[in-house]
Amino acid sequence: MYDLIIKNGWVVSDSSTIKADIAVKDEKIAAIGNAADFGEARRVIDVQGKYVLPGVIDAHMHVEAPFAGCFGANDFYTQSISAAFGGVTTFMDFTNTFKNDSVLEKIKVRHEEMSKSAIDYSIHGKFVEAPQRVIDEIEKIVDYGCPSFKLFMTYKKEGVMADDETLIKVFARSKECNALPMVHAECNAIAELNIEKFREEGDLSWPKFAEAKPVLCEAEAVSRAIYFTKYVGNALLIVHTTNGEALEIAKRAQEQGYPVYIETCPHYLTLFQDIYEKPEGFLAICSPPLRTPEEAEKLWKGIQEGVISVTGSDDCTYSIHEKTMFLEKDEEGNIIPDFTKVVNGLSGIETRLPILLSEGVNKGRISINKLVAITSTNIAKLLGCYPQKGIIAPGSDADLVVVDLEKEVTLSAQVLHNNIDYCLFDGMKVKGYPVMTISWGSVIVENGEFKGKKGAGKFIRRSINPEYLKEFSL
Amino acid sequence: MYDLIIKNGWVVSDSSTIKADIAVKDEKIAAIGNAADFGEARRVIDVQGKYVLPGVIDAHMHVEAPFAGCFGANDFYTQSISAAFGGVTTFMDFTNTFKNDSVLEKIKVRHEEMSKSAIDYSIHGKFVEAPQRVIDEIEKIVDYGCPSFKLFMTYKKEGVMADDETLIKVFARSKECNALPMVHAECNAIAELNIEKFREEGDLSWPKFAEAKPVLCEAEAVSRAIYFTKYVGNALLIVHTTNGEALEIAKRAQEQGYPVYIETCPHYLTLFQDIYEKPEGFLAICSPPLRTPEEAEKLWKGIQEGVISVTGSDDCTYSIHEKTMFLEKDEEGNIIPDFTKVVNGLSGIETRLPILLSEGVNKGRISINKLVAITSTNIAKLLGCYPQKGIIAPGSDADLVVVDLEKEVTLSAQVLHNNIDYCLFDGMKVKGYPVMTISWGSVIVENGEFKGKKGAGKFIRRSINPEYLKEFSL
Amino acid sequence: MYDLIIKNGWVVSDSSTIKADIAVKDEKIAAIGNAADFGEARRVIDVQGKYVLPGVIDAHMHVEAPFAGCFGANDFYTQSISAAFGGVTTFMDFTNTFKNDSVLEKIKVRHEEMSKSAIDYSIHGKFVEAPQRVIDEIEKIVDYGCPSFKLFMTYKKEGVMADDETLIKVFARSKECNALPMVHAECNAIAELNIEKFREEGDLSWPKFAEAKPVLCEAEAVSRAIYFTKYVGNALLIVHTTNGEALEIAKRAQEQGYPVYIETCPHYLTLFQDIYEKPEGFLAICSPPLRTPEEAEKLWKGIQEGVISVTGSDDCTYSIHEKTMFLEKDEEGNIIPDFTKVVNGLSGIETRLPILLSEGVNKGRISINKLVAITSTNIAKLLGCYPQKGIIAPGSDADLVVVDLEKEVTLSAQVLHNNIDYCLFDGMKVKGYPVMTISWGSVIVENGEFKGKKGAGKFIRRSINPEYLKEFSL
Amino acid sequence: MYDLIIKNGWVVSDSSTIKADIAVKDEKIAAIGNAADFGEARRVIDVQGKYVLPGVIDAHMHVEAPFAGCFGANDFYTQSISAAFGGVTTFMDFTNTFKNDSVLEKIKVRHEEMSKSAIDYSIHGKFVEAPQRVIDEIEKIVDYGCPSFKLFMTYKKEGVMADDETLIKVFARSKECNALPMVHAECNAIAELNIEKFREEGDLSWPKFAEAKPVLCEAEAVSRAIYFTKYVGNALLIVHTTNGEALEIAKRAQEQGYPVYIETCPHYLTLFQDIYEKPEGFLAICSPPLRTPEEAEKLWKGIQEGVISVTGSDDCTYSIHEKTMFLEKDEEGNIIPDFTKVVNGLSGIETRLPILLSEGVNKGRISINKLVAITSTNIAKLLGCYPQKGIIAPGSDADLVVVDLEKEVTLSAQVLHNNIDYCLFDGMKVKGYPVMTISWGSVIVENGEFKGKKGAGKFIRRSINPEYLKEFSL
Repeated sequence: MYDLIIKNGWVVSDSSTIKADIAVKDEKIAAIGNAADFGEARRVIDVQGKYVLPGVIDAHMHVEAPFAGCFGANDFYTQSISAAFGGVTTFMDFTNTFKNDSVLEKIKVRHEEMSKSAIDYSIHGKFVEAPQRVIDEIEKIVDYGCPSFKLFMTYKKEGVMADDETLIKVFARSKECNALPMVHAECNAIAELNIEKFREEGDLSWPKFAEAKPVLCEAEAVSRAIYFTKYVGNALLIVHTTNGEALEIAKRAQEQGYPVYIETCPHYLTLFQDIYEKPEGFLAICSPPLRTPEEAEKLWKGIQEGVISVTGSDDCTYSIHEKTMFLEKDEEGNIIPDFTKVVNGLSGIETRLPILLSEGVNKGRISINKLVAITSTNIAKLLGCYPQKGIIAPGSDADLVVVDLEKEVTLSAQVLHNNIDYCLFDGMKVKGYPVMTISWGSVIVENGEFKGKKGAGKFIRRSINPEYLKEFSL
Repeated sequence: MYDLIIKNGWVVSDSSTIKADIAVKDEKIAAIGNAADFGEARRVIDVQGKYVLPGVIDAHMHVEAPFAGCFGANDFYTQSISAAFGGVTTFMDFTNTFKNDSVLEKIKVRHEEMSKSAIDYSIHGKFVEAPQRVIDEIEKIVDYGCPSFKLFMTYKKEGVMADDETLIKVFARSKECNALPMVHAECNAIAELNIEKFREEGDLSWPKFAEAKPVLCEAEAVSRAIYFTKYVGNALLIVHTTNGEALEIAKRAQEQGYPVYIETCPHYLTLFQDIYEKPEGFLAICSPPLRTPEEAEKLWKGIQEGVISVTGSDDCTYSIHEKTMFLEKDEEGNIIPDFTKVVNGLSGIETRLPILLSEGVNKGRISINKLVAITSTNIAKLLGCYPQKGIIAPGSDADLVVVDLEKEVTLSAQVLHNNIDYCLFDGMKVKGYPVMTISWGSVIVENGEFKGKKGAGKFIRRSINPEYLKEFSL
Repeated sequence: MYDLIIKNGWVVSDSSTIKADIAVKDEKIAAIGNAADFGEARRVIDVQGKYVLPGVIDAHMHVEAPFAGCFGANDFYTQSISAAFGGVTTFMDFTNTFKNDSVLEKIKVRHEEMSKSAIDYSIHGKFVEAPQRVIDEIEKIVDYGCPSFKLFMTYKKEGVMADDETLIKVFARSKECNALPMVHAECNAIAELNIEKFREEGDLSWPKFAEAKPVLCEAEAVSRAIYFTKYVGNALLIVHTTNGEALEIAKRAQEQGYPVYIETCPHYLTLFQDIYEKPEGFLAICSPPLRTPEEAEKLWKGIQEGVISVTGSDDCTYSIHEKTMFLEKDEEGNIIPDFTKVVNGLSGIETRLPILLSEGVNKGRISINKLVAITSTNIAKLLGCYPQKGIIAPGSDADLVVVDLEKEVTLSAQVLHNNIDYCLFDGMKVKGYPVMTISWGSVIVENGEFKGKKGAGKFIRRSINPEYLKEFSL
Repeated sequence: MYDLIIKNGWVVSDSSTIKADIAVKDEKIAAIGNAADFGEARRVIDVQGKYVLPGVIDAHMHVEAPFAGCFGANDFYTQSISAAFGGVTTFMDFTNTFKNDSVLEKIKVRHEEMSKSAIDYSIHGKFVEAPQRVIDEIEKIVDYGCPSFKLFMTYKKEGVMADDETLIKVFARSKECNALPMVHAECNAIAELNIEKFREEGDLSWPKFAEAKPVLCEAEAVSRAIYFTKYVGNALLIVHTTNGEALEIAKRAQEQGYPVYIETCPHYLTLFQDIYEKPEGFLAICSPPLRTPEEAEKLWKGIQEGVISVTGSDDCTYSIHEKTMFLEKDEEGNIIPDFTKVVNGLSGIETRLPILLSEGVNKGRISINKLVAITSTNIAKLLGCYPQKGIIAPGSDADLVVVDLEKEVTLSAQVLHNNIDYCLFDGMKVKGYPVMTISWGSVIVENGEFKGKKGAGKFIRRSINPEYLKEFSL
C-alpha cells in the first residue's frame, strides 16, 4: 500500500509535462502512472489539474550571518518556514570563514546551526585564502558531502576577498576533487576606487551605490574568473549575474566547451536601479546592485538560450532596523544617506517561485519546464544532489510543490512569512503560486498553513557527477 | 492487471536516466515505478540493467519512390522490418508529387501504400508549385493529419524544384495552418552550372560529384530559405544538413529567435567524401554529397549545442543493379563513370540508432539523453505526434526500444535486413545496439527475430503544438 | 613655369591632411610643396586655409535613361553642370541593355551620348542575360576601358533581372578578366509577392512601398550574391546598401577574406521612410526604399569601420511631371496613390559632398580623410582609374575640389542646379560646402558660376589593379 | 635652392605609392613633385626606382637598463647606429622607475642618457605605483613632451608590477591629460603559481618557460586592462601582443568604439616556441614567450584587418655572457637550465624593417603601405609626433629610408650592428632591405656605412592629438 497518492495533476520535469498520478512510499516517489491502477493509499490528494513540480532548491541564501552585530531577521527554522511557503524543500547556506579558520570546522558549525530547519539543507564552504593547510582540507570537505565552495572577488577591506592566487589554487584543487567553486564576481579595485572618489566628492547617496559597482565592475571580474577557469579546467558557477556583458563572456566560454555555469536571481529580473532614487532605496541595496530593464531582458534571453542554468534567491533578510543601524542621523533625526553603511541584501526565498511563475511562465517568457530546470533540476545536477532531488521519478525523495498557475496574489509583507515588515515587491500582482509543499512525502504547507516540524530537515550529503553537468550547459 | 512489465532497466528521456520499471496496459504506458508494487502482468521482461528508450522515429526516408523504372530495394513492409531491427517504431515518407497533382490525393495514395507496414507511419506532402489550387489544399492536408511538407530547392530539370515564389507561398500558408515546411537546401544554379561545366570538361567521375555541390552550394540555399522564414515568420526544418557554414547561418537565426530547426543524418557524421575516390564510390552518391571529417566534427558540435535538433536517416535503399542501371559501359564492360546517371541515396534506417549509440554515446560525444532527443523526443514534438510518441510516460503509446550499450557488432550486409547485398558501413565496429523493439506494447523484434505483423502499423494523425517547439530550440 | 598654383590650403588624402601648396602643369598635378619655392605660375589661387580634396567621383547615376517615355530631367551636359557644383569631376553611367543586345555596342552608344559632358566620364555595362555570345564580349568590354558591370537581382517583369545562372556566369568571367560586377540586391520573389498581395488588398499607397521591399528583401539578395562570390572568387560591389543586416553579411565575408565591397548613398544616411507618410511621399520613391534612422546609424558605423568602402549618389533626377505621369487621378483630379506606377529615383549628385561634409565631417562621425576615401580614393581604386583619379599626387590629373568647412547653406531647389523645381532636402542646413571645382587644371566652378565647357569631359579608360583593392577592404 | 633632391623613387605613404621626386630644404621636406621642375640642389640622389619610406620609428626598446649588474650590450649611441642600419630614425625608451621615485626626474635622467644618440629619441615614463604625488606629476610629464606611460601587470616580486588600483588611477589621469598608457599584459598570479609549481616539480628548463606564461596568462591581463579602459574611457596601447585570443578581446572592444590599440613585434610573427627545445633556447627567452606558427598567422591577420595598429621591436640586446650570468653550472661546467635566472629580451631593432619587408610585403601578406602604417605613420599618430614624423609631406622632418625590395640578405651576427655575436634569425634569408637612411635631410647610412654623428639626435617633444587616433583604429 502506498503512503500517498497525488492524482489528477500535470507532472512536470525539465523537459515534459505529463498528465499522471504520483504514488509515494517510504518517503520516496514510488510510481508515476494511473491512480486507478495503484490501489489503496493512506492519503489521496486530488490536485484537480494543477501542476506538480519537483521541490524547489535554493542554493543561495545567507541566514544567521553575523555582521557587526547584525544577524538577519531569521534563524534557520523561521527561514525554513518562509522557504516552504515558497515551494522550497532544500536550501543551502555558506560558512562564515575568516583568515586562519578551518573551513571544515566552519562547515560542521554550520551543520549544527542548520539542524533546526524544517526542510533539507546543505552547506557551501567559503574560502578567503589558500595556504596549503586550507587546500589540504578540500578533499575532506568534499567527503563530508559539501563539494561546492564560495569565493568573493571583492570585499578586500572586510577580509573576505579571495585574491587571484587563492582563486586559482582553489579552482585547481576543486578540479581534482570534483568540486564546484562559485564566485561572487565584482572587481574590488573599481568598487573601492569609486567609493573613495564618491566619499571625497561627498555624495554616498543611494543612487551612487549602483554607480559605484557598474556593469563593467562585474563584467571584469566575470572575465577574470572565467580566464582562470579556462586556464585550470575546473567547472565554475558565477552567482547572481546581472547583465548582458557578463552573459556574453560566459556564452563565449560555453561555446568553446568550458564548463562555465551562470546563476541569476529574481530581483535582477524584476527590480531596477531606479528604486535607488527613492528615499527607501537603501532597502534595495544588494551586491551586485540592481540594473536597468534592458539588462533584465538580456537575462531573460540568457535563461531562454541556456546561458543561464540556475537561479537562486541570494536571500539576506534584514529588518529595517538592521538595514539602518549603522547609518548616522542629522539633528532632525533624518537618516544621512551613506550606502557604505547599509548592510547588503534582499529578502527573496519565498517569492522566487511565484515571481518566476508569473513573470516567466505566465508572461510566456519561459516554459514551465524551463522553470523546473532553473529552480530545481539543474541545481540538483550542478550541486550534486541529483537524482535524489530535482526530479519526480521513482526512487527520488518525495519533495513536491503543487502549483496553481491561475492563482493571483498581490505581494506584500502580510502575505509573506519572512519576519520583516516591508516588502520590496509590495503591490506586485503575481499570477501563479505554490499552494502545497511536500517534503519526503509529508505535506508541510497546505491551505496557507505551515505543517512542518522544527528539525525535521535532513542534511543532504552531496557528490557531483560530471556526467550530469553535460546535459544542460547551453 | 498489466499486460507487460519491463523491469530492471534504466528508463531514458531527453533529460533523465532513471532506474525504474515500466508497466504497459492496453497498448499504452500505464506506470513507471517499482515492479514490486505493480502486481501481476501477462508478461514480465527483465532487461537486466539495459537501457529502455522511447521508440525511434525516422521522419526522413524514401521507399517505393519510382524513378525512371527504379523503385528501390524495399516496399513499406520490408522497410518496416529493417526499421524495427534498428529500433524504429514510427517512420514517415513523402508523396511523389509532380506539377498539376493534388498533394492531398497523393497523400491518400501514399497512405494506402504504407498501410502494409508493420510499424506506425505518416506522410509529408511534397510541393513542387504553388498555384492557388495547391495553397487551398494545405488546410485540408493539415486536417488529414499531415502538417509537414517537403520542398526541394534544386532538381529544376527533374521538375521537382520549388522556386522562390513557391517557397514563400507555402511557408506563408504553413504559418497560418500551423504546419512545418521542410526544405532540401541546395542551390540549383551552382549545381547545374557545375554539372554543365564538368560535362564540357569531360569528367563526371565520382569525385566530381562532391565538387559539383560543394558546401557553399548548400549554404546559399540554407541562407535563402532562412531569409524567407525570417520574412514570413513560419517554423522551418532544414533537412540533411552537412556542414558548419550552414549551421552558423542557422545558429544566428536561432539566436535572433526564429523557429529554425536543423536535421542531420548519420552518414554525414561518419562517412566522408574520400569514398568517392574509390571505384565503388557511386554507391555513396547521395544529395547533399558527403563532406570532410572536419565538417562532421562541426555537426557533432551542432548536436551538442542544440543547433541541430533532430536526425533522420534519409534512407533510399537501392540495389547495386539499380545504382548502375543508367550507366553506360565501355567495350570491355567496365562502367563509364557519370555521376549524373547514378540514382541518389543511401541505406540507413537500420543503422541510425547503432551508429549514434556507438559514435555518439559510447565515444562520449553526446549523452544518451541527447540521443533520445535527436532520435525521438524532438522529432515527435517538431512533427506533431508528441506526447503520443517520443517519451516514456503514462498515457503514451508503448513504443520502446531496449538498448544494450555494451553489445558490439561489426556492421555488414549480412547483419542488416535491408534487402541489399552491400553495406557502406561494412566492417565498422559499433558498440551499443538495440536488442528488443516494442510497438504498442507488443514485442516486434527480440533475439534477432522479427515478430511483427504486416499491416499492424497505424497511420498516426499528427498535429503540431507550437508550445512544444519552444522547448528544444538551442 | 607652372600653369596654376593653389596655395595656403590643407591638402587632403584618405590618410593625411597637410598644409601645403599645389602646382599644376600640363593638366596634371606637378608638385606639392611650398609655393615660395615654386616660382611663377600663370594663375595663383590663394584658398586661405580651405581644404583641397581630390575631385569627387560619382560612379552611380542614371541619366538619359529612357523608361516608357520618361527620360529624366537632365542630359549628360546639364547633369555634368550640377555634378561640378557638387565637386564631382568624374561620373559614370550604365548602358540600357535589354535581352539580345550587345553590351559592347550599348557601351559605344553610351560613350557617344556622354561625350557632351563637361566633366570626365565612364560607363558600366549592364548585363541582363549570359548566353555565350554575351560572355564572349566581356574581354572586349574590359579592353574598351569599362571593366565594371551592373546586374539587377530584381525587376524580372521589366526584363532586366539577371537570374542566378546569369550572376554566376558573369561573376566567373569577370574574375578571369579582372572586372568588377556590381549588383543591385533585392529579392525579386519577396518584392513581387508583396506587390501582388498589396494590390489584392487594394492598398498601394506610398508607405506600402517600403513594406513591399523591406530590409530582409534586400538582405536575402545580398546574402545570395555574396555566396555566389564566395563560390566564384570574384571581387564584388554591392551598390546602394541601406541596412545593418546587409552589412553584417558583408562584414562576415570580408573577415573571411573575400573581396566584397559595399556602397551606400547619402539619402540612406539622412532621409527616412517616414517621408512616405506624406502626400508628396512619391517623390522619395527609390529602390531600395528609404529605411529608419536606426538603420542609418548602422550605415555610419559601417563607414567608420570600413565595411562600407564607397558612396555613390544613385542620382535619377525626375521632374514632378515625370514622377507622376503614369499615375491615375480620381474625378476630382487627385492622384490615386499607386507606388508601382511611380518611376524610381532621387536627385543627389550635387548634394552628396555637402551632405557628407555636414552630417559626416562636421558632426564628427567621420574624418575628412575618410570622406576623401569614400567619395574619391576608394572609388578610383575599386573601379580602375587610380592614381589617375582619386588622389592629389604628382602625375595625377589635376581634378580638385576646394571645400569651405565653415560655409553654411540651406538646401533648396533654388541653390541646386539639377533642373527640377523640388528638393527632398529642402530646408536642410548643411555646414561645409564645395566652393571651387577644378578639372584637368581648369577651374570649372568658381564663385557660384559654372565656367566649364560642353564636351570638355574625357572618356576615362579604366583598368582594375587588384593590388589597390587590398588596401581599403576593412 | 634645395639642399637635397631624391629622385626616381616611389614615394610611399600609408595609403599611396607614387612615382615622385622629393626636395629637402632646411632639414624638412620641402616639395614632392618632378625633379625637372625643382631646379638646382646641393645634392641629388637618384634612387633608381627604389622605394622611399618615412623613417621608421621604434617606440619599444630597452637600452642601458640596469638589471642586477647587467646593462645590455649597447649604450644609446651604439644602439642608434644599429637602429639607423635598420631604417630607424626615431626611437623611444623607458624610465627605470622604482617605488618612491619621481617619474619626471627619471625622465630627465633618461633624457640625459639618450642625448648621445645619433638619431631622434623620446621617453615613456614607467609607473609602478600611484600615490597622489605620482598622479600629480602626470601633467608635468605630459608638458615635458612625454605623454606616454608604461605599466607592467606582472613582475610583482621584482617590484615593478602596477596593481589594479594603480592601473585605473594612471588610466584616469592619462585620460584627463591626453596621455597614452601602454601595458605589458601578463597575469602575475598565473605566472607566479606556474613558476612555483615547476620549481617544486624540479623542471625549469627552457620549454617550461612558454608553459609558465601561456596564451591565457596574457589574454586574462589583456582582458582586464581593456575592462579598466572601458570603465575609464582612456586610450590604451597593449604592447607586444602575441596571440589570437588577445586580438579577439581587443577587436571586440574596438568594434564597440573603445580606443584600444595593439602592438606586436617581428619575433612573434617569425620565431616560435619550438626554439625553446634547443640547448640555446635561453637566448630566445623574452616576455611574453614565443608562441606557435598558428598564433603568428592570427597576428598577420590582425595586421591586415587593422586590429593591430603598430609594431615595435621590444629590443633588449644582451650578450651571451649576460644571458647566462645568473645561471648555475654543474660539476662538468654545463649550464643547469633555469629559465627564471635568464634575463629576458631579444635583439631586434635592426631586423624589424627587413623582416616586415620580406615576410610581410614580399610574401604578399601586407602592402607596403600597411608596412609604412605599422612601422611609422600609426606610431607617430598614436604617440604624438605626427606629422613631424611618420609621413613624407611638405613641412615634415626629412627622415627617410630608401628600400630596395629586391635586395636579398642572409641574416647573421656579421651583417648586423648590434654588438652581440649571435643572431636568433641566423641563416634567415630576407628579400627587401633598407639601403639608405636619412635623418633631418642628412644621409646617416649609405653603402653599408654609418655616416651619422654621436649626439646628433634630437629629443622630440610629443603631444597627442586625439583627432589622429580616429584614423586608423580598425
